[in-house]
Amino acid sequence: MRQSQRGQVDPFIVMDVMEAAARAEAQGRRIVHMEVGQPSTPAPRAALDALGQALSQPLGYTIPLGMPELRAAIAGLYRRWYGIDLDPARVVVTPGSSGAFVLAFSALFDAGDRVAVGEPGYPSYRQILRAMSVQPVGMQTRAENRYQPVPGDIPDDVQGVMIASPGNPSGTMLDRDALAALVARTQDIGAALISDEIYHGLDYGARPVSALELTDDVVVINSFSKYFSMTGWRVGWMVVPPDMVRTIGRLVANMFICAPHASQVAALAALSPEADAEAQENLAVYAHNRQLMLDRLPAMGFDRIAPPDGAFYIYADVSALTDDSRALAAEILDRAGVAVTPGLDFDPIRGAGTLRLSYAQSTAEITEGLDRLADFMARR
Amino acid sequence: MRQSQRGQVDPFIVMDVMEAAARAEAQGRRIVHMEVGQPSTPAPRAALDALGQALSQPLGYTIPLGMPELRAAIAGLYRRWYGIDLDPARVVVTPGSSGAFVLAFSALFDAGDRVAVGEPGYPSYRQILRAMSVQPVGMQTRAENRYQPVPGDIPDDVQGVMIASPGNPSGTMLDRDALAALVARTQDIGAALISDEIYHGLDYGARPVSALELTDDVVVINSFSKYFSMTGWRVGWMVVPPDMVRTIGRLVANMFICAPHASQVAALAALSPEADAEAQENLAVYAHNRQLMLDRLPAMGFDRIAPPDGAFYIYADVSALTDDSRALAAEILDRAGVAVTPGLDFDPIRGAGTLRLSYAQSTAEITEGLDRLADFMARR
Ligand SMILES: Cc1ncc(COP(=O)(O)O)c(C=O)c1O
Ligand SMILES: Cc1ncc(COP(=O)(O)O)c(C=O)c1O
Repeated sequence: MRQSQRGQVDPFIVMDVMEAAARAEAQGRRIVHMEVGQPSTPAPRAALDALGQALSQPLGYTIPLGMPELRAAIAGLYRRWYGIDLDPARVVVTPGSSGAFVLAFSALFDAGDRVAVGEPGYPSYRQILRAMSVQPVGMQTRAENRYQPVPGDIPDDVQGVMIASPGNPSGTMLDRDALAALVARTQDIGAALISDEIYHGLDYGARPVSALELTDDVVVINSFSKYFSMTGWRVGWMVVPPDMVRTIGRLVANMFICAPHASQVAALAALSPEADAEAQENLAVYAHNRQLMLDRLPAMGFDRIAPPDGAFYIYADVSALTDDSRALAAEILDRAGVAVTPGLDFDPIRGAGTLRLSYAQSTAEITEGLDRLADFMARR
Repeated sequence: MRQSQRGQVDPFIVMDVMEAAARAEAQGRRIVHMEVGQPSTPAPRAALDALGQALSQPLGYTIPLGMPELRAAIAGLYRRWYGIDLDPARVVVTPGSSGAFVLAFSALFDAGDRVAVGEPGYPSYRQILRAMSVQPVGMQTRAENRYQPVPGDIPDDVQGVMIASPGNPSGTMLDRDALAALVARTQDIGAALISDEIYHGLDYGARPVSALELTDDVVVINSFSKYFSMTGWRVGWMVVPPDMVRTIGRLVANMFICAPHASQVAALAALSPEADAEAQENLAVYAHNRQLMLDRLPAMGFDRIAPPDGAFYIYADVSALTDDSRALAAEILDRAGVAVTPGLDFDPIRGAGTLRLSYAQSTAEITEGLDRLADFMARR
C-alpha cells in the first residue's frame, strides 16, 4: 500500500538496546535498566483509590477540554508551585504531554512551517513535527550554555520554538533570566513559544521557572507522567493563551475526543496532599540516586556531565572514550549487563559521543548498575 | 499568539444542543438525550474486575504497538467474528479509533493529498484530515445507495478513500458486493482504503463484512468504544498491511507513546466470553429500542429514515418539515425536552434537512423520548 513521506520518521535507536536487553533477560541474564525514561513506582495510592471508587460508574467520554474539577485542580497547582493565578479555562487535559504536542503543533503551524528544537532534546518533538509536515530546525546547544538554547541559537525565520526545562536528556534548567531572554527573542521574531515542563517537580536545587511566570503568550505543556509517576495513564495537560482555547477544544474533540476518563479521575486525586507526599518520597529516592551517580561516575571516567538540575538523567559526554555511542552502549550491555541510551536519539550530530543514564529506578538497582559500570570501566 | 490555518477546524454543531440541554437541566428540567453517540452502560464487569486486580502493579508505558496478549486477543476476535486468520503482528493498539485515524492519515498521506469521505459521515474524518493539511473531498452519497458511496462517487484523483459500515449517522451497511466494488475501485486508482468498523457487533440483521475479508491492502480501524461499551477508556485498534507495521510503530511511539495501559488491561478482559455475554445483553436493549423507534417514528411524521442496519442511530430526512435542522433541533429541545443532533455536522450540504436520533440510552429513556416527540409533532 502507498505510504506517505512524512510518515517515515526516524526509529528510536534505544530500541536496539531495549531489544538486546530483553533477549539477554529471556536467556536468564539480569540486566540493570539505566535506559528507561520513566519511574518504576506506581501511581500515587490516592490516585488508585479514587479510581477504584469510580469504577462503579460508567466512565464515558468526558467533555473534550477535560473534567472541570481536574482543570481547576491543575490551575491550583500553578498557585502552589509558582504563585500564579491561572484561569482554569486555559487548562486543557490531554492524552499525555505527547497528545498535547500533536494539538499544539496542529493549532500553531501549517505545513512547511519551521520550528526550532534544541539538540540534544527529546526526539519526539522532531518526529511529531515531521509527521505533521512541519520542518524541525535543530539548534546545536552548547555545554557552556547548559545544553539549553540562547537567543542567538534561534534562527530569524522560524515560526516556532520548542524549549524544555529541565530538559531530556540533559536534565539542565533555564533560569529566569535565560528563559526571559528566549521569550523576548521569540516575541521579536513573531514565533510561537512552546515550553515542555514535564520534569517540573523533579529538581534538586533551584526550583524550575514556568514560562507562564514570564508571559501568557506561550503554550505550556506538562504531564502526570513523571513527577506524579503515571506514565502509562496517558494524561497530561496544556495551558494556552485565552484566545486559543476554542481552537484547541475543537482539535481535541476531533483528534482524541478526550483524555482517558479513568486516568482523569486518578489524576485529580494525584493532586491531593497525600499523593504529593508520596511524590516527594519518590523525589527523595531520585535525589539520593543522583548523588550516588555524581559521586561515583566521574572517578570511573564519566567525568564530562551536564549539570543535572532536574529530571532523572545524567547526560555524559563520552567522546573521549568513543565516536560510536551505539557501539559503546552495546558493549556496556554485553559486558556489564547495564542498559544505557546512546545519545544519537537526542542529538543526531554529537550524540555519537554521548550517553544518557537514567536514575529513575530504585536505589538498589542504581547501586548495582554503578558497581557494574565501575567494574566495566576498570577492565576496559 | 499566531495560529495555523489548518487548526481552524469546524465546530461541532451538536455542541450548541448539548449546551442548551445542560442549561435546561441546570434549571431543573428533565431532558431526554437522543443526541449522544455512546452507550450509557459501563465497561463489562470482567473488564473492570481485571483492572481492579491490575491496580496493584505499576502501570508504566507499554510497548508502542500495545500489549502482546491484547494484540493476540484482538486477532482472535477476527477468527470469531469473520473466520479470518489474522497475524497479531498486524494489530496495533491505539488511543481510541480517533488515535488510529491520526496515525493512519500520517502514515498514508502527505500535505496536499486528497481523501474522499462519504457525506453524511462521521465529522472527525474531515476535521482530522484538515488539521493534518490533507484535503477531504466530500462524496454526496445517495439514499438509494443506503447513504454509502458507490465506485462512481470516488473521484479519480484522490490518494485515499475513507469508508464506514455501519456508518454514523446513517447506521447503514455495505454488503459484501458493495464493499468489493469499492475495494476494486480504490485499487484501480491506486488510493489507500481506510475502513472504519467501529460499529461492528452492533447489527440487527445481516452481519457486517470486514474489509479484511476481501483484501489485506487496507487499513481497518476499530475500537472498544461502542460494542464493548468503553468510550471513555480511549482504546481502539487498527489492522495494517504487514509492510506498514514498522511505520505505524514509530508513529505511535512518537505521537502517543502507547495507548493507556489500564485501558489495555481492561480491553483484554473485554474480549472474554463473560464480557461478550454482557455486550450481547446491551445489544438486545439496542435492538429493542431500535424497534420502538421504527414502530413509532413514521407515524409521527419522521417517515424518511435510512435503513438502520447497525450502530444505534436513526438518520431521518426531515427536509419536508424544515430547511433548518438546527432550528428544528432547538425547537424540539425547547418544546419537547428531547436533545437530537442536527444533520449539519455529518453532511454540510444536505444536513440542513436531516436529524440524527440515537437509541443508545435505556429503553425507559427512549420510550419517554418517543412519547415526547409524538406529543411535539402532534402539536406542531
Ligand atoms: C521531555 C519529555 N517530554 C515529553 C515526554 C512525553 O511524556 P508523556 O506523553 O508521557 O506525558 C517525555 C517522555 O519521556 C519527555 O522526556
Ligand atoms: C463512526 C465513528 N468512528 C469513530 C469514532 C471515534 O470513536 P473512538 O475514538 O472512541 O474509538 C466514532 C465516535 O462516535 C464514530 O461514530
